[in-house]
Amino acid sequence: MKVCIVGVGLIGGSLGLALKSNGFADQIIGVDSSSRHLETARQLGLIDIGMSEDEAIKTADLIVLAAPVDALLNLLPTVLDRISHHQTVVDLGSTKELLIQQIDGHANRDRYVAAHPMAGTEYSGPSAAKEDLYQDKICVLVDTHQSAKDALDLAKQMFSSIGMKLTEMGSSEHDLHCAYVSHISHIAGFGLALTVLEKEKNEARIFELASSGFSSTARLAKSSASTWIPIFRQNRDHVLDVLDEHIEQLSRFRSLLIKKDFDTFYKKIEAANEIKRIID
Amino acid sequence: MKVCIVGVGLIGGSLGLALKSNGFADQIIGVDSSSRHLETARQLGLIDIGMSEDEAIKTADLIVLAAPVDALLNLLPTVLDRISHHQTVVDLGSTKELLIQQIDGHANRDRYVAAHPMAGTEYSGPSAAKEDLYQDKICVLVDTHQSAKDALDLAKQMFSSIGMKLTEMGSSEHDLHCAYVSHISHIAGFGLALTVLEKEKNEARIFELASSGFSSTARLAKSSASTWIPIFRQNRDHVLDVLDEHIEQLSRFRSLLIKKDFDTFYKKIEAANEIKRIID
Repeated sequence: MKVCIVGVGLIGGSLGLALKSNGFADQIIGVDSSSRHLETARQLGLIDIGMSEDEAIKTADLIVLAAPVDALLNLLPTVLDRISHHQTVVDLGSTKELLIQQIDGHANRDRYVAAHPMAGTEYSGPSAAKEDLYQDKICVLVDTHQSAKDALDLAKQMFSSIGMKLTEMGSSEHDLHCAYVSHISHIAGFGLALTVLEKEKNEARIFELASSGFSSTARLAKSSASTWIPIFRQNRDHVLDVLDEHIEQLSRFRSLLIKKDFDTFYKKIEAANEIKRIID
Repeated sequence: MKVCIVGVGLIGGSLGLALKSNGFADQIIGVDSSSRHLETARQLGLIDIGMSEDEAIKTADLIVLAAPVDALLNLLPTVLDRISHHQTVVDLGSTKELLIQQIDGHANRDRYVAAHPMAGTEYSGPSAAKEDLYQDKICVLVDTHQSAKDALDLAKQMFSSIGMKLTEMGSSEHDLHCAYVSHISHIAGFGLALTVLEKEKNEARIFELASSGFSSTARLAKSSASTWIPIFRQNRDHVLDVLDEHIEQLSRFRSLLIKKDFDTFYKKIEAANEIKRIID
């Protein structure tokens, strides 16, 4: 099996590493708009060989698109234009509704499987790639009824081979859920970082005191703008709804502090503790 | 050296474990208002023996107060009333200004060292204790000019023995800094948990998707109300200032989303990325 990965950063590079290591791929072909990234990926063993996009698409059995979600909007249709019916295309983007609309009715629509492996770190680029990034994480397969059975099966085999648990969802449901469990956390992290950076002038002292509570929230604020702005742009309506609700929650806390109503605040914290049921 | 620890939960219990393990203490005497906690602490080896508060204070060379910050307001003065001049008292509370005011001018003020070891987890109680909780973390010693040299030296020896890095700060500066780097992260975490819990009805799906980004922020929302409400109460003014600023930051993000001004949002994320300089 020849696998082509378009975009050899954290997401694509980690996939390459895992698929080489487990023997799923006989050859990993890397494609990247940055020739420097491509060379780094080859040196780090994330891919076997770098090629031009055209050449790689002609060569590969399975084409995986690991580009930022704004690039995917242009990339996916042009890739589908160029493949034949024995090839399969999978994307790894974090938003799905707009992308799937973009290729609605395409002659090769059924060769495409929309996937979102829910894994990542706050780092980016090929040097951030990790072989176990996907192990035991969830992969959401989206609008699967629109994919051919053999294409879907191949995508499932690939994600299962790297230790992912599979689930299926509609594109609209997927984007809404991701606004809640991923996008808002990142917005909160960016906001927290700016709050501390702008208010606190004595940076040496922040550095000294930054405890685990702060680090675990603010580490998300290291995430790259070029990854997240396209996500926020495409999922803007859902993100806005969740952000409104989050600001509302914080405003209620603010009001309780102003009124010194610590009994109600206590109950709010106990209600928040219910999250124990949901995360480990 | 006989060390008495009042409050044998996560904070006190972890200290007991570390001081027994490194040989700093010949005997760890535990005191706790909950006899069940005291028995659990003894069984887990966090303490050698449980005693009544009075008996323990008579026996110990070093008395460490690891109670919630509201309990400390009453506990610290009555402990200082009962000690003699060869004994040392250290507290481990997360807020300092009010507590230090509370014992201002006390005859035994100089036997007391105000300390805040900046370590913890979202869990509480003796069974959450960990021997390496304090390793490589920061301990802030507060208003140290008010402590006798030998008392301060003993406190420093104790915190150094468990691998902590020491720093010193005034009480007002301490409480303000902690509002920025610790208290606001917890409020953000509680808010995020409530946002998701209240809006999202299909819990199985949240459970499925909760990715590392969400977990790292929302894990703080598991923290105990009985620990945090007293902290928010005592540090209310600083927490309110920082919360106002955080809501303002999020409101700016909201406004950028409404206006679809993704260029400015991009720059905001790049500014937030500056947090890299401050946290690993």
